[in-house]
Amino acid sequence: MELGMIGLGKMGANMAQRLVRGGHDVVGFDPKPEARSLVEGFGAKSAASLEELVDKLPAPRAVWMMVPAGEITGGTVDALMKLLSPGDTIIDGGNSNYKHTLERAKAVADKGLHYVDCGTSGGVWGLAEGYSMMVGGEKDAVERLRPIFETLAPGKDQGWGHVGPVGSGHYTKMVHNGIEYGLMQAYAEGFSILGHKQEFGLDLHQVAEIWRYGSVVRSWLLDLTADALDKNPTMDGIAPFVPDSGEGRWTVAEAIDLDVPAPVITQSLIARLRSRDGESFADRLLSAMRNEFGGHAMKKE
Amino acid sequence: MELGMIGLGKMGANMAQRLVRGGHDVVGFDPKPEARSLVEGFGAKSAASLEELVDKLPAPRAVWMMVPAGEITGGTVDALMKLLSPGDTIIDGGNSNYKHTLERAKAVADKGLHYVDCGTSGGVWGLAEGYSMMVGGEKDAVERLRPIFETLAPGKDQGWGHVGPVGSGHYTKMVHNGIEYGLMQAYAEGFSILGHKQEFGLDLHQVAEIWRYGSVVRSWLLDLTADALDKNPTMDGIAPFVPDSGEGRWTVAEAIDLDVPAPVITQSLIARLRSRDGESFADRLLSAMRNEFGGHAMKKE
Amino acid sequence: MELGMIGLGKMGANMAQRLVRGGHDVVGFDPKPEARSLVEGFGAKSAASLEELVDKLPAPRAVWMMVPAGEITGGTVDALMKLLSPGDTIIDGGNSNYKHTLERAKAVADKGLHYVDCGTSGGVWGLAEGYSMMVGGEKDAVERLRPIFETLAPGKDQGWGHVGPVGSGHYTKMVHNGIEYGLMQAYAEGFSILGHKQEFGLDLHQVAEIWRYGSVVRSWLLDLTADALDKNPTMDGIAPFVPDSGEGRWTVAEAIDLDVPAPVITQSLIARLRSRDGESFADRLLSAMRNEFGGHAMKKE
Amino acid sequence: MELGMIGLGKMGANMAQRLVRGGHDVVGFDPKPEARSLVEGFGAKSAASLEELVDKLPAPRAVWMMVPAGEITGGTVDALMKLLSPGDTIIDGGNSNYKHTLERAKAVADKGLHYVDCGTSGGVWGLAEGYSMMVGGEKDAVERLRPIFETLAPGKDQGWGHVGPVGSGHYTKMVHNGIEYGLMQAYAEGFSILGHKQEFGLDLHQVAEIWRYGSVVRSWLLDLTADALDKNPTMDGIAPFVPDSGEGRWTVAEAIDLDVPAPVITQSLIARLRSRDGESFADRLLSAMRNEFGGHAMKKE
Repeated sequence: MELGMIGLGKMGANMAQRLVRGGHDVVGFDPKPEARSLVEGFGAKSAASLEELVDKLPAPRAVWMMVPAGEITGGTVDALMKLLSPGDTIIDGGNSNYKHTLERAKAVADKGLHYVDCGTSGGVWGLAEGYSMMVGGEKDAVERLRPIFETLAPGKDQGWGHVGPVGSGHYTKMVHNGIEYGLMQAYAEGFSILGHKQEFGLDLHQVAEIWRYGSVVRSWLLDLTADALDKNPTMDGIAPFVPDSGEGRWTVAEAIDLDVPAPVITQSLIARLRSRDGESFADRLLSAMRNEFGGHAMKKE
Repeated sequence: MELGMIGLGKMGANMAQRLVRGGHDVVGFDPKPEARSLVEGFGAKSAASLEELVDKLPAPRAVWMMVPAGEITGGTVDALMKLLSPGDTIIDGGNSNYKHTLERAKAVADKGLHYVDCGTSGGVWGLAEGYSMMVGGEKDAVERLRPIFETLAPGKDQGWGHVGPVGSGHYTKMVHNGIEYGLMQAYAEGFSILGHKQEFGLDLHQVAEIWRYGSVVRSWLLDLTADALDKNPTMDGIAPFVPDSGEGRWTVAEAIDLDVPAPVITQSLIARLRSRDGESFADRLLSAMRNEFGGHAMKKE
Repeated sequence: MELGMIGLGKMGANMAQRLVRGGHDVVGFDPKPEARSLVEGFGAKSAASLEELVDKLPAPRAVWMMVPAGEITGGTVDALMKLLSPGDTIIDGGNSNYKHTLERAKAVADKGLHYVDCGTSGGVWGLAEGYSMMVGGEKDAVERLRPIFETLAPGKDQGWGHVGPVGSGHYTKMVHNGIEYGLMQAYAEGFSILGHKQEFGLDLHQVAEIWRYGSVVRSWLLDLTADALDKNPTMDGIAPFVPDSGEGRWTVAEAIDLDVPAPVITQSLIARLRSRDGESFADRLLSAMRNEFGGHAMKKE
Repeated sequence: MELGMIGLGKMGANMAQRLVRGGHDVVGFDPKPEARSLVEGFGAKSAASLEELVDKLPAPRAVWMMVPAGEITGGTVDALMKLLSPGDTIIDGGNSNYKHTLERAKAVADKGLHYVDCGTSGGVWGLAEGYSMMVGGEKDAVERLRPIFETLAPGKDQGWGHVGPVGSGHYTKMVHNGIEYGLMQAYAEGFSILGHKQEFGLDLHQVAEIWRYGSVVRSWLLDLTADALDKNPTMDGIAPFVPDSGEGRWTVAEAIDLDVPAPVITQSLIARLRSRDGESFADRLLSAMRNEFGGHAMKKE
């Protein structure tokens, strides 16, 4: 089928390519000319503006946004609301906060447009292996997009599903990422313990490779960890600085809102915050407190 | 090659069977006659006592213990030390504390015996899929056992390895289990959040199935979680009571001994402790404290 | 000076009484006649409506709200905005979310009114011991209320202060309560450990009393804990169920917003969530997962 | 009464001085001559060796050790066992692990000596304010020392007590310190949050002072924190590096042994470990993992 793809970065371009390979007609838009050239190179059409993109698609249109969550997604929805016609569908494939999705879906519905939220996992590997997609929206709107999902997914009926009403796709992806934080932190802690046990002289890459087959902790993240440990066993030159991009903290907030105890997901977020807090006022104050009551020497900077 | 297998429970019997299928001669010992009959049924020999087991094996012997960690393993080693001859090898395939392993290896070496520790992962699935094995011990002792490891593992050179000196196999398995606790808790928290978001009416089994293909959180534990959610989506009739069998708490102790911060593995252990602490004196006291300073009503039992 | 007190519950009535004792003229309003009678009993005037309260106060008026945070506070501000005159001051002495305070202060300023937020600590003990007050607002508005603060506080210049612009009073009180959660949880855990060490047969009340004098952990919360342990050493009849009233979760959200790692305050909140989650879907799922991979028996309900 | 004091460092010298002031005859031993001169200066006798100390005390002797826990305490007990006579009493006033105390008490009892363990809190403030003491041992042995405890304590019957059999004093002190870690961390986190809220420009010292009077979080540790914030509001020049001296990690181990969930005490220990782990292999690995699956840039060192 025909699909407009807005945002031809790392994710959007790969998705466009997977769709073209699967026989779909894709019109891609990105403000950067080189991004447009890229997708033309593998057989997609391109548009130099949202207007042009909309013009090049037959009604009822399906337009997939693969742009940064937040203001850019919001602005794109606002622009599309002026350009699209009743019956057209906007898909947000990014990591939007589900609360924003609910607001946008409502605004869009008032114009007679459909809104579908698709939580998309798979990262840079999706082109080759397919994307895992959690889809929210009205049943009919999602069904019309079935050919797209079947091509993007790892298998026709594998790795994607219509999980519930609009918002539920991004919600599910948010929690997916919260879990991801927890899994990553568990592996990172485990390998750190192994690496600090100097008398055993363990080869962390070897251990990761062993665990990849037959162990209870085998996973795709472990496959990647093994690869990272192969490339750089001592993590030399990599700063101990771990960003977080939003979904983790939203998951923590959601858990608290729902009164669900989530100590591990929460601690994995806090560990990331701590990785970026080199100053640590709290630790300085603790040092000063120890000095106050026990006369313990404070380490100087 | 020829191997004695001591302990023909869930794990030991399956391992014996996988070895017989792979062409090895296995003599199995278990105090329970029905366990011995079971392994005879698939072609292993059996022995009614440790003495008989030792008699039935040609020197230099290889004897694999697959018995509960702690006193039973310790007692078995003591008994074997009296029965075996210099040059024989004892393998501990269970979840022994690596500190005990170091002590036993030393005692055994004084008798001219070899000691190999094999951290074994795979659970009830090992028979079909192979076992992940982290092996510690002297190089020669481990090499002599190579045919055994190649058969038990998922692939000849996959899923097992000689990771270091004696003790390092159990150490690596201990940390493996610590990671396992963290991974499990991350999934459990995530699905709990999803299930509590009632307005989306999510089908947790469906979500798990979607994630199994192409998502960043795909793993073997997720495959099992999907299966559990398929069988019993609401977890009806299952008590919220989670045992821990030792390796998790040893991992936490080890992290602290090494000054390695491991908040997620630690919290996953604490969550299990909490699941079994229905009385929660701490929570009662908190309720009483709130009443003291704020006059807040205490919920009665 | 003259002050209107809105809300004559546990906190408001006690504050009115402390003010009357200190020589101030207090007009109290509460929808409940018995609450009004109570304050008349110790020398305050009363009003049966907000209108009457406003009428009975000379301009420029000072009106202190001591009502539940959220909708009731919001509704009271809305009503007062219609009744008060430019130059009058509204004080919010409750546990409002500081973000709401910022919004209300802005709305109120548009009418020429002043807004002062006062985070108030001390609970049921404030009448006798005085209240700790963290005050936010414009300098002049706060200064005009100095006689009130000096009477309510434990000492003229002790236990209260003008900490910053409007909102900062509630912000500081919010963090105060977050710290309070952490302190309470630390004590509760410690006494729980002591109580579980059965071979020492410790008397928890005795331990708390010892610590009250000269120890590093002495505190007012410990004084209260000692009292609670004296009344009910085994916490018999008290359910292990700990509510949270908002400030703790706001503190956690704020820490995350500011990228400040706050593991202990956060865990103390999560412990309260867990105390109320008797069902614990997560723990049930963990039990099911253990059964899946290891064949471990699940405890039944 | 007469008492030998072994170890005249910060703690021992102050305790000797408080005892002399209270009318007791103290013989102090320390290998450093200047430490002996110091205690002579305020009226204690001194001894240049353990032998001399024992000789200078009348039987039945009472000898108080105030030396570092671990090997030094162990060595001192060994030496005293050779010098003392049946009926004499050894008191360990340091922060020994209670398991060591149980072993030493047993060894000492075989020689007809008594062993009393005294968990001592108060730090450098004890000289002026008295020490909080949790005493374990046989009833008669403790009773004989009553005059000593009554003088060292903040009040005759305040701040000390016989809590149970030998070992229970150190056990109670261990948990005291675990709680202390949690309290300190809660304050440190709270002040860190306040300090990061730049738009309010809060004066942390002022906030601490306000809270000292009438607030729920008032405590001795808060008094000290206020003092530290007064001296150095920005913690300039103090490294974010927080040692831990043993009792915290023992408390965590004990909680796990007893199956008591103690998330806050545990996290406060982990926060200290993290403060000293500048390298953070775990965080580097997390950064590498993010790069693997999402192509996210890694921050370089």
